[in-house]
Amino acid sequence: MIGQKNYYSMLTDKRILELRKRLLGPSFSLSYREPLHTVQGKGQYLFDANGKRYLDAVNNISHVGHCHPKVISAEEKQARTLNTNTRYLNDIIVNYAQQLNDTLPEGLDVCYFTNSGSESNDLALRMARNFTGSRESIVLNGAYHGQTSALIEISPYKLYGPGGTGAPEFVSVIPMPDPYRGKFRGSDQKAGSQYAGLVLDAIAKIQDDGKQLGLFIAEAIMGSGGQIIYPESFLQQAFEMVKKAGGLCIIDEVQIGFGRTGTHFWGFETCDVTPDIVTMGKPMGNGHPISAVITRRDIADAFDNGMEYFNSFGGNPVSCSIGQAVLDVVREEHLQENALMVGTYLLELLEELKNKHAIIGDVRGKGLFLGVELIKDHDELIPAGNEADLAANLMKDNNILISNDGPDQNVLKIKPPLVFTKDNSLELAETLDRVLDQDNFKIG
Amino acid sequence: MIGQKNYYSMLTDKRILELRKRLLGPSFSLSYREPLHTVQGKGQYLFDANGKRYLDAVNNISHVGHCHPKVISAEEKQARTLNTNTRYLNDIIVNYAQQLNDTLPEGLDVCYFTNSGSESNDLALRMARNFTGSRESIVLNGAYHGQTSALIEISPYKLYGPGGTGAPEFVSVIPMPDPYRGKFRGSDQKAGSQYAGLVLDAIAKIQDDGKQLGLFIAEAIMGSGGQIIYPESFLQQAFEMVKKAGGLCIIDEVQIGFGRTGTHFWGFETCDVTPDIVTMGKPMGNGHPISAVITRRDIADAFDNGMEYFNSFGGNPVSCSIGQAVLDVVREEHLQENALMVGTYLLELLEELKNKHAIIGDVRGKGLFLGVELIKDHDELIPAGNEADLAANLMKDNNILISNDGPDQNVLKIKPPLVFTKDNSLELAETLDRVLDQDNFKIG
Repeated sequence: MIGQKNYYSMLTDKRILELRKRLLGPSFSLSYREPLHTVQGKGQYLFDANGKRYLDAVNNISHVGHCHPKVISAEEKQARTLNTNTRYLNDIIVNYAQQLNDTLPEGLDVCYFTNSGSESNDLALRMARNFTGSRESIVLNGAYHGQTSALIEISPYKLYGPGGTGAPEFVSVIPMPDPYRGKFRGSDQKAGSQYAGLVLDAIAKIQDDGKQLGLFIAEAIMGSGGQIIYPESFLQQAFEMVKKAGGLCIIDEVQIGFGRTGTHFWGFETCDVTPDIVTMGKPMGNGHPISAVITRRDIADAFDNGMEYFNSFGGNPVSCSIGQAVLDVVREEHLQENALMVGTYLLELLEELKNKHAIIGDVRGKGLFLGVELIKDHDELIPAGNEADLAANLMKDNNILISNDGPDQNVLKIKPPLVFTKDNSLELAETLDRVLDQDNFKIG
Repeated sequence: MIGQKNYYSMLTDKRILELRKRLLGPSFSLSYREPLHTVQGKGQYLFDANGKRYLDAVNNISHVGHCHPKVISAEEKQARTLNTNTRYLNDIIVNYAQQLNDTLPEGLDVCYFTNSGSESNDLALRMARNFTGSRESIVLNGAYHGQTSALIEISPYKLYGPGGTGAPEFVSVIPMPDPYRGKFRGSDQKAGSQYAGLVLDAIAKIQDDGKQLGLFIAEAIMGSGGQIIYPESFLQQAFEMVKKAGGLCIIDEVQIGFGRTGTHFWGFETCDVTPDIVTMGKPMGNGHPISAVITRRDIADAFDNGMEYFNSFGGNPVSCSIGQAVLDVVREEHLQENALMVGTYLLELLEELKNKHAIIGDVRGKGLFLGVELIKDHDELIPAGNEADLAANLMKDNNILISNDGPDQNVLKIKPPLVFTKDNSLELAETLDRVLDQDNFKIG
């Protein structure tokens, strides 16, 4: 069926664009200068209305591959049987909760099911603020944690981005612990301690104001921040300081959880820390709206102050069946191991490109969560945001989907479905090599 | 398959309860004193692990009936084809947005897709606060609008309920416009004007404090408040006052939208008002996590201040296909008309019960969104919350599912899938009649 023009689509691109303009909120954006009209997905591939195939190296939500038959089959079977809410007894939710808990350190064993990473992070805020009696929050510059009112307030990516209005007084923003272009440079423990010192300063400031610290929230690798891997021991030290000050540590695994980093199932394990609350979302249902918050018993018990938590859809049997199928596929198809093997190979290929193309300032990442930072020069590290945008568009013209992101929009992001192969990696690297050969990407 | 013990379930009720206690947040609640172990749903029926069939008169989320084949078929077909996000062009989202807009008054035509009623109401708050530059909010006592941090703040049902901490200073709470037991009694225009006067007082107070009104949010019929139908012209007058003061009016259709009231597709139409922003959720995907915010172009344009709105799952092709199928089924099976016909019949039956059982203080509602308020006496109208809870449990023992809710938990709520029949109504009313004949329900 693929290859037949508009087989799946009755509307032209022009018509869809007109209708979007009239019918959808203008705050929604489209990827690429010439938007992609998707009609089918399969594994690590997307197909457009002309039957053109794209290698998808950007949609981390489609964790086990687009339209995975086992996931769809679980969805179908359960949708035909029962879909209702958590106010009734049902096997599926407890079996799934058990399986999720088995992936986490002991003590992180109380689950709340929600419908998006945003709902999860918002609920985590409610729990932490309830537990500590404080909304004083320490966050990392460049971080994005979701789109509810309360999450915009703690997301510097939004607060200092277009349309942002700055941080509220109860939010302390720490400079991004970026080994490449941050306030302190390098990935070693010295830099880690220097950034951790800034967390300590923020805690001292909060305490000097006579206030109690509420929470510290961070991803284990920063996503919207531009695939930032913290310097050694930063997160460990920051956690120690926060816990000592009576605050809770929330780890946001929405972007990188479920094996993407390759070496570990959860991102925080790569940093050797144990959060008080962990939130998860995007890949959890391979595109189906499911997410979760998992925390300790004492935090959950404190939150159980008489106010019911009810979520109309969260934890329904269809969503949980889908989540269970995703977990099963990650295990059965050894996708975490694949992320490590393929991601390591791709990182090596990208390192080679860095040696060849001066515009590449840094190559980094873990597993299949990689970043290529483009710069205009090697002294000032001036971000090459326009060039990164152009590169993502040229890659797309060459049938490969990546994105550019980060505070300066100058980081090429690679975060494909975990079924990505070494051949796919080679194709991506060779194509990027050809793209960067163009004159637009020559620097100083 | 139904009738075979534990066919669908490998776990006993006792085991599920143990696992829930260990694995799920304790803030989750279970319906009924002896919880219901659901294993299958079909139309207006749920089946438990022993094969026992329950007439479902409570799950408004399963709007077109549990496991509706057309909805499941749409889900399957699209899940097999493509599931991705709004950053790509796709027919399905714009076609669905168009169909939704066609159900709404002209001018309400800019859509945002989200994953829950909570996400929708939270986004509506963001839009209204952005548009007016103010977070000063007027809400109705007893109202519930969702579970994000920002929504708990404007939900008196939570603020003044168990574990609640009262209203923040920027939230003005108006007494519930309850014709039966409210501050002003009766459903006529006099009572409507009296309640509207309280809105005017709240606006004056905000303005006296030198502040600008931000928004007024209300359901067209209060759900968690206890199926409250406002006195005549209350909402019209309140809207006029709010708009005159430069505030925006948000209508929360999460509970009653999509034809449930019978006479109209949207609840606000029954009150003859036009909101600035309308939010929808629960029934929209018949249990699938989909929801929306629809607003005017000027409000959407103001919200487009440079900050992208991206929702990982909101507006994905699978969710939109499901939403489209629900809309189609409501039309093809004339479910709005059925809600009117069956709801009117059931309301008459309940009125007869009121004449027979002194414990019934009030019977009210529209279409298939009905309430039966239980009281301990006819002078003070002392709420019979324990009795309502007992009645819901006894109805369940008699294979009929209803709930009790409202600030005093004394209102029996009837909000079945819209495929509910006259025979179902008769069964419900006859069973309730028998239940209320018991000595527990004799009053003064």
